[in-house]
Amino acid sequence: MVTPVQPNREPVYQKLANSLEGMIRERSLRPGDRVPSVRQFSAQQRVSVPTALQAYATLETRGLIEARPKSGFYVRPKQANATPEPKGPANTPKITRFAKTDPFETLLADHSNSKLVPLGAALPSGTLLPGIKLARTMAAISRKLGADSIHYDITPGSEALRHEIARRSLEWGCTLKAEDFIVTVGATEAVSLALQVTCEPGDTVVVESPTYFGFARMLRELKLKALPVPVDSATGIDLDALQKALSRNQVSACLLIPNFHNPVGCAMPDERKKQLVQLLSTRGVPIIEDDIYGDMQHQGSRPRCLKAFDPHDSVILCSSYSKTLAPGYRVGYIAAGRWHSQVAALKRVTTLCGPTLPALAVAEFLRNGGYDRYLRSVRQAYRHQVEQMGKPSWNAFPKESACRARRADFCSGANCPPG
Amino acid sequence: MVTPVQPNREPVYQKLANSLEGMIRERSLRPGDRVPSVRQFSAQQRVSVPTALQAYATLETRGLIEARPKSGFYVRPKQANATPEPKGPANTPKITRFAKTDPFETLLADHSNSKLVPLGAALPSGTLLPGIKLARTMAAISRKLGADSIHYDITPGSEALRHEIARRSLEWGCTLKAEDFIVTVGATEAVSLALQVTCEPGDTVVVESPTYFGFARMLRELKLKALPVPVDSATGIDLDALQKALSRNQVSACLLIPNFHNPVGCAMPDERKKQLVQLLSTRGVPIIEDDIYGDMQHQGSRPRCLKAFDPHDSVILCSSYSKTLAPGYRVGYIAAGRWHSQVAALKRVTTLCGPTLPALAVAEFLRNGGYDRYLRSVRQAYRHQVEQMGKPSWNAFPKESACRARRADFCSGANCPPG
Repeated sequence: MVTPVQPNREPVYQKLANSLEGMIRERSLRPGDRVPSVRQFSAQQRVSVPTALQAYATLETRGLIEARPKSGFYVRPKQANATPEPKGPANTPKITRFAKTDPFETLLADHSNSKLVPLGAALPSGTLLPGIKLARTMAAISRKLGADSIHYDITPGSEALRHEIARRSLEWGCTLKAEDFIVTVGATEAVSLALQVTCEPGDTVVVESPTYFGFARMLRELKLKALPVPVDSATGIDLDALQKALSRNQVSACLLIPNFHNPVGCAMPDERKKQLVQLLSTRGVPIIEDDIYGDMQHQGSRPRCLKAFDPHDSVILCSSYSKTLAPGYRVGYIAAGRWHSQVAALKRVTTLCGPTLPALAVAEFLRNGGYDRYLRSVRQAYRHQVEQMGKPSWNAFPKESACRARRADFCSGANCPPG
Repeated sequence: MVTPVQPNREPVYQKLANSLEGMIRERSLRPGDRVPSVRQFSAQQRVSVPTALQAYATLETRGLIEARPKSGFYVRPKQANATPEPKGPANTPKITRFAKTDPFETLLADHSNSKLVPLGAALPSGTLLPGIKLARTMAAISRKLGADSIHYDITPGSEALRHEIARRSLEWGCTLKAEDFIVTVGATEAVSLALQVTCEPGDTVVVESPTYFGFARMLRELKLKALPVPVDSATGIDLDALQKALSRNQVSACLLIPNFHNPVGCAMPDERKKQLVQLLSTRGVPIIEDDIYGDMQHQGSRPRCLKAFDPHDSVILCSSYSKTLAPGYRVGYIAAGRWHSQVAALKRVTTLCGPTLPALAVAEFLRNGGYDRYLRSVRQAYRHQVEQMGKPSWNAFPKESACRARRADFCSGANCPPG
């Protein structure tokens, strides 16, 4: 006997979910607002706790609310696709020579101009970084080591630091060991070394379009050509366009920012990452992955690295603690896979090794849990900032006179005035 | 009226000088021995103080004794030319490709092996460096700056440090300004940047033969060819051989260690430096000068740099505080003259900038007189070591069993057992 379809018999949890969705769409509940707890909601609506929970789960699946650990459920910030997406080049990717003039100096100089809201370079505000705690760690290590604090930290660099980084690689979906890493002078040195060991001057490198302006300068100075492939704000680099570009050009490497892309901001979904690594590794094209923003997710879990989907050892992972801890400590790292010894050899003749004390201070901060505590607080601050920036009142950009006061609020993650 | 020549009438001071010279030649007075004070000598010999002084001045001119500030007169250590000189290649210099195997790793690893006397790499012993004082300076600065200690030290790097280096350039015979310098990650980065802005891969670089083994590796990794020109242990690079080499080869740069050459040890006389710079600058060949040992004279005054004889801005001066203060701080500098902006641009894409706190700690140590105090004591220690090494008993090299005990004595500059 066939059970008759009952289209009008909507389950209770779905009805509840629909009405909550209505409130969110009409902005009675706005992005960032806390919704009642499951227990409160069940009491308010006179439904069982499991039903209330099922309603919330439905809204979560619809991408409208999100659970925050130990805090409850919140209306999710507006999705990126609500904003009109920047148009990438429509045609087949073509090799580009970057102009001699670029915003590098201007942007770095502007960043320290207190009259400007620093939206130019993706540098963290000093007020968000754990500067005082790190300074104390540095002072303590320096005093403790005394005469031993001045010795070379011979390449591959501090074993204590490499051990801590290796331990954290589990979070990126990798199982890297301390000996897989070389400590570098920031991610800049890591990416620069990676480009130099995979390319010869005159070679072509695939980059995302748009990409970090510093990469344009890096490619030009290293006498490399750029092949820009459009990046989508939800799914990352356009794989079809990439395939087309690879079939028409001899490419020596692919330089990408898959997690929290600079300047687009998107994190590539895992499935796309897998496809990307497969596409490039079968063609024997090395991937240089810049993961400097990987630890700074403001919702969900820490995104995986391309290196996590890399059975053929085609990915050179480059990162640093410049965006998450201390720009001026110059502590970065590279996991160069099969290019490891070439990278080490080139590093030895270009900088010999990195600064000893900053590496030890970062290692200690990672070891004693300071970094994890800091990440928890800074992720919250960034989440708040994203929510504030999503508010319609921010569309009318504040006048110069109001900028300075607001800048401090914005950077410290405190509540910003809505207008 | 013509005064008759009186060949046998030798002045008293000369007689005294001759007899003292006889004592030195017969080793009654040995290198490093203190000779009587001028006042004692005048009393012993029953001559006036000015006559005694004139006798000593004559011996100084003959290179047999030397005055040490606040200490008196000493018999000078044996001159380098008393030891048989290593033979350089006799033929016309030819372009060389360095072998893939070199002692770089072994030497650096051996340096920290406490069972070996560290004669392989020209690295200072930790016991001679002001590690504890610097560590205190570093801790104090870190605590004082707190949250401000983590910011980027944007290229060209700390103005305070560049100002101190510029002030010291007077001692090298230069008048450089703070804006002439770029702070680098040790002298390695400075030399590497200098080679990269003056040469293209495949180009030829003149080096001294022998030269620092790290340069062989650097040239190979940067895909440059070496043209080795013999170096003389008294006068530095052979100018005739250099001229011959330049006339037969297309040379893009000349990489030299004119002060306390590694491994030969000689400091090129000023007159030869002048001729060298003239020879190369008229031919338009850039000179890369490595001056890392320049501050470590153990007798006489601080030798001048090639850059002091450089009216045509052909010299790129590279140095660091790795051999004089703290290897692991990675604080070096480059005065690149007309290549300044190219060096800055390349540095920005290869390391972005150097570590902030180490640069500030070195700047403070230079500013507060700590460096000058340290130089005075370390120069004395090096002088003592040179004297000890000149003693005939050192010719029979100590057996392995005696090595460890002696190593400590040797490194700390304390009195070494003669056998």
